[in-house]
Amino acid sequence: MAQFLAATAPYDRAKAVVYGLPMDWTVAYRPGCRLGPDAVREASWGLEEFCPSLGRGMADSAGCDAGDAPLPAGDVEGSLKIVEQAAERFLRDNKFPVFLGGEHLLTLGTVRPFFARYPDLALVQLDAHADLREEYQGRRLSHATVMRRLSEVLPPGSLYQVGVRSATQEEVEYAAALGSLVPGGVLQAMKALLPELARRPLYVSLDIDVADPAFAPGTGSPEPGGPSSAELLEALSLLGRVRLVGFDLVEVAPPYDPSGITAYLAARVVRDVLLLVA
Amino acid sequence: MAQFLAATAPYDRAKAVVYGLPMDWTVAYRPGCRLGPDAVREASWGLEEFCPSLGRGMADSAGCDAGDAPLPAGDVEGSLKIVEQAAERFLRDNKFPVFLGGEHLLTLGTVRPFFARYPDLALVQLDAHADLREEYQGRRLSHATVMRRLSEVLPPGSLYQVGVRSATQEEVEYAAALGSLVPGGVLQAMKALLPELARRPLYVSLDIDVADPAFAPGTGSPEPGGPSSAELLEALSLLGRVRLVGFDLVEVAPPYDPSGITAYLAARVVRDVLLLVA
Amino acid sequence: MAQFLAATAPYDRAKAVVYGLPMDWTVAYRPGCRLGPDAVREASWGLEEFCPSLGRGMADSAGCDAGDAPLPAGDVEGSLKIVEQAAERFLRDNKFPVFLGGEHLLTLGTVRPFFARYPDLALVQLDAHADLREEYQGRRLSHATVMRRLSEVLPPGSLYQVGVRSATQEEVEYAAALGSLVPGGVLQAMKALLPELARRPLYVSLDIDVADPAFAPGTGSPEPGGPSSAELLEALSLLGRVRLVGFDLVEVAPPYDPSGITAYLAARVVRDVLLLVA
Amino acid sequence: MAQFLAATAPYDRAKAVVYGLPMDWTVAYRPGCRLGPDAVREASWGLEEFCPSLGRGMADSAGCDAGDAPLPAGDVEGSLKIVEQAAERFLRDNKFPVFLGGEHLLTLGTVRPFFARYPDLALVQLDAHADLREEYQGRRLSHATVMRRLSEVLPPGSLYQVGVRSATQEEVEYAAALGSLVPGGVLQAMKALLPELARRPLYVSLDIDVADPAFAPGTGSPEPGGPSSAELLEALSLLGRVRLVGFDLVEVAPPYDPSGITAYLAARVVRDVLLLVA
Amino acid sequence: MAQFLAATAPYDRAKAVVYGLPMDWTVAYRPGCRLGPDAVREASWGLEEFCPSLGRGMADSAGCDAGDAPLPAGDVEGSLKIVEQAAERFLRDNKFPVFLGGEHLLTLGTVRPFFARYPDLALVQLDAHADLREEYQGRRLSHATVMRRLSEVLPPGSLYQVGVRSATQEEVEYAAALGSLVPGGVLQAMKALLPELARRPLYVSLDIDVADPAFAPGTGSPEPGGPSSAELLEALSLLGRVRLVGFDLVEVAPPYDPSGITAYLAARVVRDVLLLVA
Amino acid sequence: MAQFLAATAPYDRAKAVVYGLPMDWTVAYRPGCRLGPDAVREASWGLEEFCPSLGRGMADSAGCDAGDAPLPAGDVEGSLKIVEQAAERFLRDNKFPVFLGGEHLLTLGTVRPFFARYPDLALVQLDAHADLREEYQGRRLSHATVMRRLSEVLPPGSLYQVGVRSATQEEVEYAAALGSLVPGGVLQAMKALLPELARRPLYVSLDIDVADPAFAPGTGSPEPGGPSSAELLEALSLLGRVRLVGFDLVEVAPPYDPSGITAYLAARVVRDVLLLVA
Repeated sequence: MAQFLAATAPYDRAKAVVYGLPMDWTVAYRPGCRLGPDAVREASWGLEEFCPSLGRGMADSAGCDAGDAPLPAGDVEGSLKIVEQAAERFLRDNKFPVFLGGEHLLTLGTVRPFFARYPDLALVQLDAHADLREEYQGRRLSHATVMRRLSEVLPPGSLYQVGVRSATQEEVEYAAALGSLVPGGVLQAMKALLPELARRPLYVSLDIDVADPAFAPGTGSPEPGGPSSAELLEALSLLGRVRLVGFDLVEVAPPYDPSGITAYLAARVVRDVLLLVA
Repeated sequence: MAQFLAATAPYDRAKAVVYGLPMDWTVAYRPGCRLGPDAVREASWGLEEFCPSLGRGMADSAGCDAGDAPLPAGDVEGSLKIVEQAAERFLRDNKFPVFLGGEHLLTLGTVRPFFARYPDLALVQLDAHADLREEYQGRRLSHATVMRRLSEVLPPGSLYQVGVRSATQEEVEYAAALGSLVPGGVLQAMKALLPELARRPLYVSLDIDVADPAFAPGTGSPEPGGPSSAELLEALSLLGRVRLVGFDLVEVAPPYDPSGITAYLAARVVRDVLLLVA
Repeated sequence: MAQFLAATAPYDRAKAVVYGLPMDWTVAYRPGCRLGPDAVREASWGLEEFCPSLGRGMADSAGCDAGDAPLPAGDVEGSLKIVEQAAERFLRDNKFPVFLGGEHLLTLGTVRPFFARYPDLALVQLDAHADLREEYQGRRLSHATVMRRLSEVLPPGSLYQVGVRSATQEEVEYAAALGSLVPGGVLQAMKALLPELARRPLYVSLDIDVADPAFAPGTGSPEPGGPSSAELLEALSLLGRVRLVGFDLVEVAPPYDPSGITAYLAARVVRDVLLLVA
Repeated sequence: MAQFLAATAPYDRAKAVVYGLPMDWTVAYRPGCRLGPDAVREASWGLEEFCPSLGRGMADSAGCDAGDAPLPAGDVEGSLKIVEQAAERFLRDNKFPVFLGGEHLLTLGTVRPFFARYPDLALVQLDAHADLREEYQGRRLSHATVMRRLSEVLPPGSLYQVGVRSATQEEVEYAAALGSLVPGGVLQAMKALLPELARRPLYVSLDIDVADPAFAPGTGSPEPGGPSSAELLEALSLLGRVRLVGFDLVEVAPPYDPSGITAYLAARVVRDVLLLVA
Repeated sequence: MAQFLAATAPYDRAKAVVYGLPMDWTVAYRPGCRLGPDAVREASWGLEEFCPSLGRGMADSAGCDAGDAPLPAGDVEGSLKIVEQAAERFLRDNKFPVFLGGEHLLTLGTVRPFFARYPDLALVQLDAHADLREEYQGRRLSHATVMRRLSEVLPPGSLYQVGVRSATQEEVEYAAALGSLVPGGVLQAMKALLPELARRPLYVSLDIDVADPAFAPGTGSPEPGGPSSAELLEALSLLGRVRLVGFDLVEVAPPYDPSGITAYLAARVVRDVLLLVA
Repeated sequence: MAQFLAATAPYDRAKAVVYGLPMDWTVAYRPGCRLGPDAVREASWGLEEFCPSLGRGMADSAGCDAGDAPLPAGDVEGSLKIVEQAAERFLRDNKFPVFLGGEHLLTLGTVRPFFARYPDLALVQLDAHADLREEYQGRRLSHATVMRRLSEVLPPGSLYQVGVRSATQEEVEYAAALGSLVPGGVLQAMKALLPELARRPLYVSLDIDVADPAFAPGTGSPEPGGPSSAELLEALSLLGRVRLVGFDLVEVAPPYDPSGITAYLAARVVRDVLLLVA
């Protein structure tokens, strides 16, 4: 019910649209990321509309918070269909979308229309986990299989996986065949990718668990050993130099973070992205 | 992975079976009851195997903890099918099941085979909510519609709703037509029902939110104004006088209860039921 | 930023107005009730718009959530002035106000215009504390002195204190001179008062700490030994038989209640009051 | 390091002495009651020094907070010896002690000197658990065996167990032989005991878990089904009619109660006891 | 009521004085830093009195914990006056003060007497926020305006802002005119400043939110992207090379940090400062 | 009751054994690490059995989770004896043990048999605290004295202390005489030690508080200023190049970390060690 900080433009006039996707139907261990969108919106009001390091302010962005998608609880296919239709609408209306998850499976719905529109699109996934399993707990549609499903339909060479530090042996082998894993830390990897990414439209999918759990404890699958929030924010600031066409931020699970810092980090990321694309 | 207190008999020799159903795919506001079964098992080890007020001990019950059903996350129909097959197996094997939810929609799966076996079965629902909506958030299968779905297939006069203090106007009218709402507090209602229930086999479905939130804060939809744990336990002790054939306890959501008292109350309920049916 | 459940009528057409007063400048031990209004609004969406025991639904109430008063943080007198002007406006516009605190000192601002309008007004305070100190921590304006300040300007015989179980000796003596303390438990006291109250317009000020801390842990000054939420709700249901003209609910402090049950109880109280005055 | 509310008299002039015993070496499931004394002291400052229902104020009590006993962490026998010596000193100095635990095993140390001094002493234990095991986890000295150990050295007929709702079958049989279990709820039992207790000096040992977990979640072994804080406080107010010579309050474990209400209840109990013996 | 670790010298003999300023009247989003002083004191006892990296021990410092200032809740001007008088007294008595906030507005009171005494004083602010707004929420005295108010009365060139990563566009422009923002990370900035600072008396004001929220989640306005506690402590160790005359640490808000690590970091900072000035 | 991830081999066939030591009898400030072993086991199931950076999988390790030692609560000497016998058995059976504490005093029991077996053993302690006190709170056996006790019986030159940032002056002097403190950060120190360690069998004792509290808030004595989890994991990965013969991980105290990230970090460490020794 809340709105994201300063994203108060009417839909028609807005360049960027914040859209909540409160789904966590396939989360295995620690559910609750369906509560993520509202927590991120609420935390956003603790930030400023201006970013000193980017030197830009929200007033310029003409962002619109379009609320949450009406996702049917417990209906994976139905939810993905709604998500996909929303992405298609934003593309049709020439909006830059920032999708607020919800679980990572959502990216299956958000990203497919972008590949339809931009055949040379690059997809950068920032994530502690590879999400390349063939199936998980008996299901082919899961937060742990989302990049596998995408890899089956995307053009070769379009997926870049950054920050991955958890994967099964099978996932590592599959990723090696794909050539998707970008070595090194998040900032180092993003810097290395920049020349290549600069030539293509780009969609970024950020799983908040890419940050070390100290910086984002409120998530479903904390994986120690990740970057700090400072490093992550610096890496994302590089997106100002590429042609970003879509963004999602997923897996913020407020029940596991009574301090609320995960939502603050997520809100900061979203605000910075809105500033970068304004 | 843990076992319920003293429920260590092999399946073949056990009279009662504890079975976890870790599903919360359709929970609207506060997910997390998929974590309920393990929390209840863990809390159970803080209790004794003997109950002074019932004068019985767990050693007699020969209970078996059969672990959790492998429910596919986010697949409502698939999960219900697995639940229903489990219930059928327990009936076939002549076991008394205690199902540990998980959300209340699970009762749709657990209870149907019992009606197939016992055509004169009575179903007593202890719950703060009527769960009689025609649909909820666009879905006909939901924790908020479960008793409506059951009412459509059960024989008239088989549903007894106890402790309900939250319902829409439509639900109240539907319940009035059904004659399902038992007036008064939980203990008073159970005492009033006893003569009638004593003549039929009985399945009891207990939504932990029937207790006041002070006694069970760890649940998805806290509804103030309910009974104390003392009253609830006394009401359940009356089940020793009827022919109980099945039991489920649902909606324990640990993330919202850092003190853990909800799981202790749930564990106490399960232990007492195991003692009563031993 | 959120709205209270179903309080979506435009101001002009609404009979009742929900208005947040996010102030806790004078709270001594556990601040945080300035966060109360939004927590209560958020929790309200977990309730139904209809109350089975009252037999009424929110659709009838035409309530409006007018947001929060712009109270200047740390400015007690300035805040009280804004509060008082808001109360005057609601009276002028013939609205029934439900003020959501915030600390109890706010009642000094909300209630004075009601006495100006209704000289025979009765003020019922439901509270664990007498709030009758001459001064507190060197200040005459404090959550602990609010009823003393009011007693100095109200007509004799207009203050009724229900549920008080904490007071200094001086407060007890002052209350004895006033004749304000109503003996007995909350429900018993309200029943006893009913004949007397039925003859006068009534303003009710409910400090959530009147409930036992088990039912409302999220408050600044928990005082053990109070009524259950069931007893409190039953006592409030008696207000359907009197001429209620104003209501405030104060001292909900979310930081001390990670389970959120305090906000659910407060939301239930507000919803029931809205139903009663509709 | 904090002091209990108003217990600021010098030791020599004080009638009552508050003394912390921060030990939880034998607690099995949820340790942390060694942190109880300070949490209770801190919460006490949220209360008044006067009790309206008792009609007495702390100024009269001349209480002294003597700090904490220097108990060697992990040394059960050594700790008990220090505790016993402290009790002997308080008896010698003619002080009324209020011992703040810490775990219940401490009562083995506190109560023995009282029986040496008062051969006709009655010991009233308010507790959810019988604590009558012969041994627990291989140890004869444990919070779960404390009353068994005492029963072996106390005169027959001196132990009264009130509020017990958890025990093994062996404990129930042992208690039956002792005749120690007082039937009924806490208030009912205390009322029934009063005539008998009025003839003897009395030591009361209160395990906070005698209250229902809703009212005292911060404890090591929550056992659902107990009395409310209101009932418990009313039962304790009866102690004004007997010759109370010593008191302990044990098993307050703050880590499990983020709301702090357990410490408030304990502080209220201690304050009321100090008022009663002043 | 507690004392800071080893700060047990009598006031007359102490070189340094720890003084609590429990005020948060103007905090906008997450109040509770009025509880900071006691939380920091309590945490300090988990530290050693000696610091291996500084090679110094508290025994040398002859520190005194003078308790808390009696700040009138909700009275901003009155509180600031008391704070200012305390600072004047410490200066008069030749004490080195460590002020424990409370909110950042307190620095307006603490620092002005220091400029009166040391006209060439440098003020170093370590903070995530610039606090240079002209007004905030309609008020000119606020935690968000404190450095603006100071900048209006301090000599030009006396304010150094380190670690700032949140500001409005207006604040950035105002700071540019002032020349107050020190670029780079906290450690880098402090190293760069050192030569300049070494020539002047220095007052340091540390807002704990300068650390990344992972290291200090218990604060009112978490701002991601800050330094680690290791970097912050190293930066502060440089203060051993300058002529430090006063220090404050503000914005520790315990309710938002159930783990308590914020208070541990703050206590460590205070201990190190006490060691440096001993 | 739970098992560690993939440690499901039968004892006879296992190369490595995970063994829980749930003891915290001597913990001074924040008890609860007796709950550590189960929390670490539970968290382990959120990890993968394969580590991409190590390039190894758990399937190879043939680990066995042998459950918890039956340590008598509150009996320090008795517990240490049981621990020592367990270590002897593992040595006799040629198993690599991973001991899960529990408090650090346990290392006194685990490590002595290893020195009996390997006279040239090196003991590397990763810890924020030196643990070299002569006595603590009047006791010679304590988590704060464990390395002092060991230093009295181990051969000179066998103890290496890494990451220590808290110690008394006496401890620093004692360590200087021992030559045990390894200067620099954890990763730097481990790299520097590597050549020396490569020539000897090695036992590593890891106190989780060596990590900065942001990465491991759930511990008894948080000490700010430590390494990140990424640095710690990288330092531990160096153990693949030495002859590791035993490992313990201690001081994980779940009650102080509602987010659970401490247990995830500890589980990750244990998993990596199991992979390294497989």
